[in-house]
Amino acid sequence: MAGTDSTKNEILGGPTIVLVGPQMGENVGSAARAMLNCGLTDLRLVRPREGWDSGDSFAMAVGASRGILEAARVFETVDGAVVDMDRVYAATARVRDMVLPMLTPRHAAGEMRHRVGAGQKVAILFGSERFGLHNEDVARADAVIRAPLNPAFSSLNLGQAVLLVAWEWFMTGNETANVTVPDQGEPPAGHQQMESFIAHLDQALEEGGFFPSPPMRPRIMRAIRNWVARTNPTNKEIRLLHGVLASLSASRLGKDRPYRQPGTKKPLKGGGE
Amino acid sequence: MAGTDSTKNEILGGPTIVLVGPQMGENVGSAARAMLNCGLTDLRLVRPREGWDSGDSFAMAVGASRGILEAARVFETVDGAVVDMDRVYAATARVRDMVLPMLTPRHAAGEMRHRVGAGQKVAILFGSERFGLHNEDVARADAVIRAPLNPAFSSLNLGQAVLLVAWEWFMTGNETANVTVPDQGEPPAGHQQMESFIAHLDQALEEGGFFPSPPMRPRIMRAIRNWVARTNPTNKEIRLLHGVLASLSASRLGKDRPYRQPGTKKPLKGGGE
Repeated sequence: MAGTDSTKNEILGGPTIVLVGPQMGENVGSAARAMLNCGLTDLRLVRPREGWDSGDSFAMAVGASRGILEAARVFETVDGAVVDMDRVYAATARVRDMVLPMLTPRHAAGEMRHRVGAGQKVAILFGSERFGLHNEDVARADAVIRAPLNPAFSSLNLGQAVLLVAWEWFMTGNETANVTVPDQGEPPAGHQQMESFIAHLDQALEEGGFFPSPPMRPRIMRAIRNWVARTNPTNKEIRLLHGVLASLSASRLGKDRPYRQPGTKKPLKGGGE
Repeated sequence: MAGTDSTKNEILGGPTIVLVGPQMGENVGSAARAMLNCGLTDLRLVRPREGWDSGDSFAMAVGASRGILEAARVFETVDGAVVDMDRVYAATARVRDMVLPMLTPRHAAGEMRHRVGAGQKVAILFGSERFGLHNEDVARADAVIRAPLNPAFSSLNLGQAVLLVAWEWFMTGNETANVTVPDQGEPPAGHQQMESFIAHLDQALEEGGFFPSPPMRPRIMRAIRNWVARTNPTNKEIRLLHGVLASLSASRLGKDRPYRQPGTKKPLKGGGE
């Protein structure tokens, strides 16, 4: 299902976005931009206001997302726009007099990912800026997508609404780790590099009379170790820190005593890497 | 932590949004709108372009979100804007020459919810439309928030970027069920109502000679039961279906034979409820 071949899923295919009666070109444009941000490409418009494809929409849809506007298809009716679909969702905050399942965007996204993975075609209807979706349009859908928002202020701009739903779709297929640290091409410091720095620091602190008493030394060094470990330094950063430490020790002692990193021949200079 | 007193958390408090050097009033306005959508209220601006508080921003920030613009505070420096913060995040797609943890918006949101729940103050920096955040600004942050987007087209509009991060924040405190069915004040049909409808249908089908053979009858009815059960009908819908069934049976038999729902005296009419 989701995410096994995420790169492909992210860039190609995915739900069709149907804007029903959009009034402002800039919103069509920002919807197109949000779609491409999230790897969606099939845009359909039902009775858009005339001039929707004028400057405003193309100004909002920067760069590659203009291709989505150019390829957008226009339909007279919602039925026509979704005739080839296996499942239709209506994105709307208001559902009046209808008993349709209402899904959070996150839940709907998981469902859509499953269906698209099974080869089904899926569309999401968005209403016009002023009136949203009419009841007859919502009745053509199999389910409603409703973003739970601040109940005191839940009115979303059309482009923002498309982004939320498209983003949730995208995230179901995305495998980015929660936390990554860009290493700038530098590998993380290994155990030995870390130990060598801790030993250097321990020695410098001992020489400076930092430890109140010998029994305190291991406990204090453990606290310092914890702090250093949390920083997950790179090799380059460890070299930098050796240099910082050597410089601080030298200036404290009032003498020029460059520290030699174990295994290197060149003394490190201030800020030297 | 998250979500125990979600109503309060959703509407009040939450991260501070800091826009650094925003150039277009309409983006400041749509950021304010996205903030209030997601229950955030504290907006700070660092060196916004002159005229940011003119018509454009207020046109985009509809309704109550204008209050956020009115209350926004302007600062000369990023340091000034975040001086009272316990943790600062930089929202940016580009991190050059810096080794900072990069978090997905979803992960960052969970972390922020935890911190805010513990009474900490948290801010998120967003850069200008053209240049994003400068390296010196990013260096003031404790971590980077980076939305994984279509690698071929990851450029987000400023208002959209604020929405994504604010939405993820909001969702960590939101307890809306994945799927809800608005019952329009009508309770779901109970077991007895369902059985009564199935019995009615079974009887009508038997009378119509629908079942190919007596042994097939239970199996076919089981398939029909499954289908009806999946619709999770309300009481009102079951009454409607009784009427539909009575009408169809009557027209098939070519006679006016109104069905009496068990326990009622009045015959149901077409579409009658």
